[in-house]
Amino acid sequence: MFKNIFENVKKTHPLIHNITNYVTVHDCANILIACGAAPIMADDAEEVAEITSICHGVNINIGTLNRRTIASMLIAGKRANALGRPVVLDPVGVGASKLRMDTALKLLEEVRFTVIKGNISEIKAFATGSGTTRGVDANLADRITGENLDTVVAFAKAFAKETRTVIAITSAIDVVSDGETTYCIHNGHPMMESYTGAGCQLSALVTAFVAATPDRPLEATAAAVAAMGLAGEIAYGRLSEMEGNASYSNYTIDAIYNMTPEILGKGAKYEVR
Amino acid sequence: MFKNIFENVKKTHPLIHNITNYVTVHDCANILIACGAAPIMADDAEEVAEITSICHGVNINIGTLNRRTIASMLIAGKRANALGRPVVLDPVGVGASKLRMDTALKLLEEVRFTVIKGNISEIKAFATGSGTTRGVDANLADRITGENLDTVVAFAKAFAKETRTVIAITSAIDVVSDGETTYCIHNGHPMMESYTGAGCQLSALVTAFVAATPDRPLEATAAAVAAMGLAGEIAYGRLSEMEGNASYSNYTIDAIYNMTPEILGKGAKYEVR
Amino acid sequence: MFKNIFENVKKTHPLIHNITNYVTVHDCANILIACGAAPIMADDAEEVAEITSICHGVNINIGTLNRRTIASMLIAGKRANALGRPVVLDPVGVGASKLRMDTALKLLEEVRFTVIKGNISEIKAFATGSGTTRGVDANLADRITGENLDTVVAFAKAFAKETRTVIAITSAIDVVSDGETTYCIHNGHPMMESYTGAGCQLSALVTAFVAATPDRPLEATAAAVAAMGLAGEIAYGRLSEMEGNASYSNYTIDAIYNMTPEILGKGAKYEVR
Repeated sequence: MFKNIFENVKKTHPLIHNITNYVTVHDCANILIACGAAPIMADDAEEVAEITSICHGVNINIGTLNRRTIASMLIAGKRANALGRPVVLDPVGVGASKLRMDTALKLLEEVRFTVIKGNISEIKAFATGSGTTRGVDANLADRITGENLDTVVAFAKAFAKETRTVIAITSAIDVVSDGETTYCIHNGHPMMESYTGAGCQLSALVTAFVAATPDRPLEATAAAVAAMGLAGEIAYGRLSEMEGNASYSNYTIDAIYNMTPEILGKGAKYEVR
Repeated sequence: MFKNIFENVKKTHPLIHNITNYVTVHDCANILIACGAAPIMADDAEEVAEITSICHGVNINIGTLNRRTIASMLIAGKRANALGRPVVLDPVGVGASKLRMDTALKLLEEVRFTVIKGNISEIKAFATGSGTTRGVDANLADRITGENLDTVVAFAKAFAKETRTVIAITSAIDVVSDGETTYCIHNGHPMMESYTGAGCQLSALVTAFVAATPDRPLEATAAAVAAMGLAGEIAYGRLSEMEGNASYSNYTIDAIYNMTPEILGKGAKYEVR
Repeated sequence: MFKNIFENVKKTHPLIHNITNYVTVHDCANILIACGAAPIMADDAEEVAEITSICHGVNINIGTLNRRTIASMLIAGKRANALGRPVVLDPVGVGASKLRMDTALKLLEEVRFTVIKGNISEIKAFATGSGTTRGVDANLADRITGENLDTVVAFAKAFAKETRTVIAITSAIDVVSDGETTYCIHNGHPMMESYTGAGCQLSALVTAFVAATPDRPLEATAAAVAAMGLAGEIAYGRLSEMEGNASYSNYTIDAIYNMTPEILGKGAKYEVR
């Protein structure tokens, strides 16, 4: 099924509107092209509604947010909602400042998100900040392992239900849930934490996958998460002795570029709960 | 002749002021250094006039424009005009929003550009938006091929005449015209469309080439276009099986770094009409 | 001793707050991760005080400054001072515009910097602009060589004394002084000038090193400068015939990623004056 979802990206070449940070934006653009989608970056309030209108999905990332771009995120998100196009939120560092938390909460209140994607610390902080952890155990470790997987799955389900989105939590094991069904994905490599932007790249990828298969956001998100993890594995396999995180970062994008739907279908490692 | 033009860049090391987007800005800086020029990025209205004054050319790219930087583009462009220094416009995605079109039109009205560089879709949209297509057939396909080359050449000539600039249109064949003479350039590789920023890099390169040979903007632009295409060919030749668009993007800059004027002179493939 | 300083980075994983330019920001993030530190980029006035509070050091770089981020630099710098955390200033292109000079002077007046790092032209311009060259010979060449080293050392000492900071001047030979003791560092490779951002990367690295050994800012700065230079040498050794400045840029980060404290201890080439 991941194979079909990836094929849809290759067939439909979705155009993705990104309002994202200036640290990893270049890699987000390249990974979108690599997977068969196309990127456009636009963050001025005067043009974002128009840009969203010509796109198949919107990727909102609060990595280096500021007053000017927060307004643009709200406009773009609402326009995408009005047009029935998917919107993905990456609440980067949401626990690190009041501005980030307030922005993420305002976005959650005013925009209907298709997917919220973060690492375990971010999603925990966001769930706590949003008050959606009432009755949910957000007292999680900062790493998803075989031992605490049940707890994280329950948490992801509850948070997905309350926010009515697909929740994607990345860690050593990735957990993707729509509140009913949960994918636990075992792809990836520890070195993906050693360069900037793996998470941002994944959010862009998720947006492309969901835009190409909008009626199956859970499966599309899980497929994108598996593709990114698999790319990390392939990239690691290419590394020679003198290569480090800068080369590795490029190799993950290269791996997405060379990944066929068949390779993803065969390489994805997951279980459904 | 392209050889001499490239030699001028190597001899004069022009300093180029870039007001450009935050997606591909890093690559623009590196390709300028790679060709023998030097970059400076500055976009605050309070300093752009001064920065332009110490530079040999200005590169204006509307890829991620906003109110703040639009004002800076106008100031920098006018200052360059007052000093007789070349100014290049890259109207990225000009057809995608009213803000981009309005900005590009305002720039065209208030700044005398030396070169306008875009892909075929952008230049068509810009010509239509600027009303300069009166009597010009802008009803072009989105790809320049051997079959429609005559039509594109006629269009480029007419648009160049009306705007009094050199028009550079990139596609499978690139067309560069000053309204009288037209270069059709056959360098390049399809993979140049598979990473972000080949067009932005080219605009930076054009600015350096024109700044180094300001009395021959048509030939300087054509030489830069050929150099970029040749770099794309050389970079493709280096690609091994596992490499994709991220590696390819770096290899095009590497190819400019290692390109001598002699290599450009021998490798440039073009006809003059 | 450089070995121990680098070990401290590996042990403490300092989190570094960067307010920096959008040209080289991605490489600054990756070099911080490469050395064992962690980056956060945040430049909105509403959140910078909070972000600084959770970080071990602040890196301020005026490469693409604007009104909005200047305010943020002041807030972050003052907060770091209040918390006793190190702050590093990279006065990129300080001589190129009044805005840059005024900003750098205002920062110097209102923030107590631990280290000021620039190339010889920048530090000369800054010293002249700040009026600290009274009685100091700032009439230096733009290149530090064996022949003018004594003059540069005297200048660095005097400027360090007047500003009460560690001054790091980069060139063919790098000079790091706290006004009493001066390190002259002979690592590095000329190709480090052929890509954008070696200086910015170094400022990030210096911040990490000083944050991990805050009681020895002179030695920590010198160790970071030696590490960067050594990375440039190692990266050059990896270059094959077709590779240029884009590959080289990645290789310097890779070299920091693979550099152990032992490698730095053995590879550092310096004399103390």
